[in-house]
Amino acid sequence: MEQEKPLILVTNDDGITAPGIRALIKLMTTIGEVYVVAPDSPQSGMGHAITVNNTLYCDKVVIEKDAPQQEYSCSGTPVDCVKLATREILPKKPDLCVSGINHGSNSAINVIYSGTMSAAVEAGIEGIPAIGFSLLDYAMDANFVPGESFIKKIVENVLQNGLPKGVVLNVNIPKLKKDEIKGIKICRQANAHWFEEFDKRTNPMGREYYWLSGKFINEDKGEDTDEWALKNGFISVVPTHFDLTAHHFIQELNNWSLHD
Amino acid sequence: MEQEKPLILVTNDDGITAPGIRALIKLMTTIGEVYVVAPDSPQSGMGHAITVNNTLYCDKVVIEKDAPQQEYSCSGTPVDCVKLATREILPKKPDLCVSGINHGSNSAINVIYSGTMSAAVEAGIEGIPAIGFSLLDYAMDANFVPGESFIKKIVENVLQNGLPKGVVLNVNIPKLKKDEIKGIKICRQANAHWFEEFDKRTNPMGREYYWLSGKFINEDKGEDTDEWALKNGFISVVPTHFDLTAHHFIQELNNWSLHD
Repeated sequence: MEQEKPLILVTNDDGITAPGIRALIKLMTTIGEVYVVAPDSPQSGMGHAITVNNTLYCDKVVIEKDAPQQEYSCSGTPVDCVKLATREILPKKPDLCVSGINHGSNSAINVIYSGTMSAAVEAGIEGIPAIGFSLLDYAMDANFVPGESFIKKIVENVLQNGLPKGVVLNVNIPKLKKDEIKGIKICRQANAHWFEEFDKRTNPMGREYYWLSGKFINEDKGEDTDEWALKNGFISVVPTHFDLTAHHFIQELNNWSLHD
Repeated sequence: MEQEKPLILVTNDDGITAPGIRALIKLMTTIGEVYVVAPDSPQSGMGHAITVNNTLYCDKVVIEKDAPQQEYSCSGTPVDCVKLATREILPKKPDLCVSGINHGSNSAINVIYSGTMSAAVEAGIEGIPAIGFSLLDYAMDANFVPGESFIKKIVENVLQNGLPKGVVLNVNIPKLKKDEIKGIKICRQANAHWFEEFDKRTNPMGREYYWLSGKFINEDKGEDTDEWALKNGFISVVPTHFDLTAHHFIQELNNWSLHD
């Protein structure tokens, strides 16, 4: 008897036509039955934004003729896509949600700004095993091939082992040739941050405006971080959760004079 | 010799004219020198979104005549406001960032969707002690007075004790009269989620669209959670951090067959 194929939801934040999601869809159709629900336009930096004060459109689309997957293009954020997919579009709760492959890193603190990872986290909140994939290459013609066998291995492991409640995986892939990738390393999120630099300009009407840019600064010297792994040729896998409680600080807070 | 007043940055996600931020500004001017950098329009549900593909405007404004605070209205998200404030507007690194008072709860999983809390988290990433305040009342004419003495007490404690690197506070205030509030309780984030319900409609051009809505579901029976505290008449204080690593799962992941 043939085993039923796993139902896989694919989404991203670069938009449904981005090369990164096309590569991920192609790979997932070799593993399961694939539904794609992804933003109709780039949503980078959207974090865990949801659309509360506006309407959401979601249309069935055909991006590749005769492809096995079903695809839906959505006007909302990556998190909206996951919510719409699970509640309105998918025939049942998916066995897995994969998000990406993002064009650019979501390591370290980037996880918090990332639409790619927020989509995976949203799936995790809904109890669906979920993984965000990112390649450290912002280029539109980035080469996703070297990472593919590793992505497949990680996906198969998650389908086999499951993930504990409240945990999703943040996977980053270095920009290397396949034989240069040293393997997969389980890591913690590096304690790094962005140092903002605003580019101040004047518009044609004489009004000043800014462009946000910045430098990424990693002061975390640990060799167990995602930054270290990526710099040393490894694919980083960070188990990521959404209980933001700083449990270690609860006891000390109880000693503050808040209770008189 | 007079001690220098602390420099306090005030922001929010409901927009610079919302009653909640006006109440918080008024309270903070009794404690320190206040700068306001807040969104020019409501940004609820924006999570940790940043503006990467668009321009940012930020204008000095006067909302209340002869008020002691300096105020700037910004076209971006709450996180953009904090980045702009610290890099372009404030004379020096602030001693404190307060965000809110939000019209509506940011307890439990709401912390992850909340622009109010994301602004506080962003300040925390930049090494600034930060607190997000929310009142469990979505009404525009919500009564912020009952919580004021508690907000002041929390702020004074943070200014005196500081906060450890990487920790900010998520404060939620129940919708009660002052003498009904039982006090302040240090809590963990309840393990709750939203069950989405999409309202499907047809626009005047015949195209289908959705409104996102949902039911909040708390299956966490713990008496150490923010949900429990709020239901039982307490103000909840959850220490919140932005290391999303699920440290407890690293060891098990190392046992997976990812390394052959």
